[in-house]
Amino acid sequence: MAEPSTRSTRDVLTDVLLDITARRGLDAVSVRQVAAAAGVSIGTVQHHFPTKDAMLTAAFTEVVRRIRERVANVVPGPDVPRNLAAVLRELLPLDERRSAEVRIQVAFAARAATAPALAALQAGILAEVTESIAEVIALARHGEDGPEDTRRKAHIALAAVDGLALHAVSSGDWLDPSTLTDAVDHLIGTLLAQ
Amino acid sequence: MAEPSTRSTRDVLTDVLLDITARRGLDAVSVRQVAAAAGVSIGTVQHHFPTKDAMLTAAFTEVVRRIRERVANVVPGPDVPRNLAAVLRELLPLDERRSAEVRIQVAFAARAATAPALAALQAGILAEVTESIAEVIALARHGEDGPEDTRRKAHIALAAVDGLALHAVSSGDWLDPSTLTDAVDHLIGTLLAQ
Repeated sequence: MAEPSTRSTRDVLTDVLLDITARRGLDAVSVRQVAAAAGVSIGTVQHHFPTKDAMLTAAFTEVVRRIRERVANVVPGPDVPRNLAAVLRELLPLDERRSAEVRIQVAFAARAATAPALAALQAGILAEVTESIAEVIALARHGEDGPEDTRRKAHIALAAVDGLALHAVSSGDWLDPSTLTDAVDHLIGTLLAQ
Repeated sequence: MAEPSTRSTRDVLTDVLLDITARRGLDAVSVRQVAAAAGVSIGTVQHHFPTKDAMLTAAFTEVVRRIRERVANVVPGPDVPRNLAAVLRELLPLDERRSAEVRIQVAFAARAATAPALAALQAGILAEVTESIAEVIALARHGEDGPEDTRRKAHIALAAVDGLALHAVSSGDWLDPSTLTDAVDHLIGTLLAQ
């Protein structure tokens, strides 16, 4: 049977988690803090998120869900490079919302570097996104590249976008939104041209 | 006057820090742990690294110093793209040593996302590395690009390399060394061709 009240508590807790992690970093996230911010007992938080890794995984999973939802809502036009740019922009910290999401993703990646369970989840998500990007690249290139070449280009595209996002959120105002979108637009043009 | 014994203690502590952060993550680093692993008192560790951010900054600064040293030792040949590839490979987790360095850099970037002092240091390093890459690109392109175009390519190159490194260390064995070097070689070829 469905448990609407339990689900709703979990959603509230996840929102609080996203907010604290994005604003003050993973170090600031504790069971006590999440309980206080959500207005629930420490026991309730522990029930939903027994460990810090469980908290971070919930926050990351929610970020991935939101990005997937927005990407699904991108209306594809006849211009394939433009469609790819629209999708990749959802991964860049171009506004407060996306900047908060990138901070969660970076915190998750940093933990995943030493936590195998988180690394497995990260590998699955990266494989899925790389596959989606490869499909768009194949479409734009009209089958001119072999599958290995297409896959390599998809790896480069996702790495460049995530690297730009990482550089932007970790360096204050060093990279502004127009530098980020310029770089991604140029990269797409370059990868799809040859 | 120089203080050889103090310097040496700090170096030992930095090595221990690098080791713990790379193997078990930033969460595992504590004054107590570093003191135990280095065989010194807690007070000695606190003297050199009064906060966790001070520890992480010392570890990151040491990683940057080591990479700079290795890059300075790359003997440039007549083939400029090859020189660029040799330099960028020093930033990829292609062996245990470089993998440990990338883990430190990712942990530092994650903290820098919510700590302005760390973000300022990160911005300075990124600006310096981007500038160096731009110089090599300008050389390889024989002045065919304008400075803005060269800079954009340097941003893309560094973002792609750091993104690949981030993906590799955070996803277990999802990206192997040959996938990483293939992607970087292809990217260099693409950026230098047009």
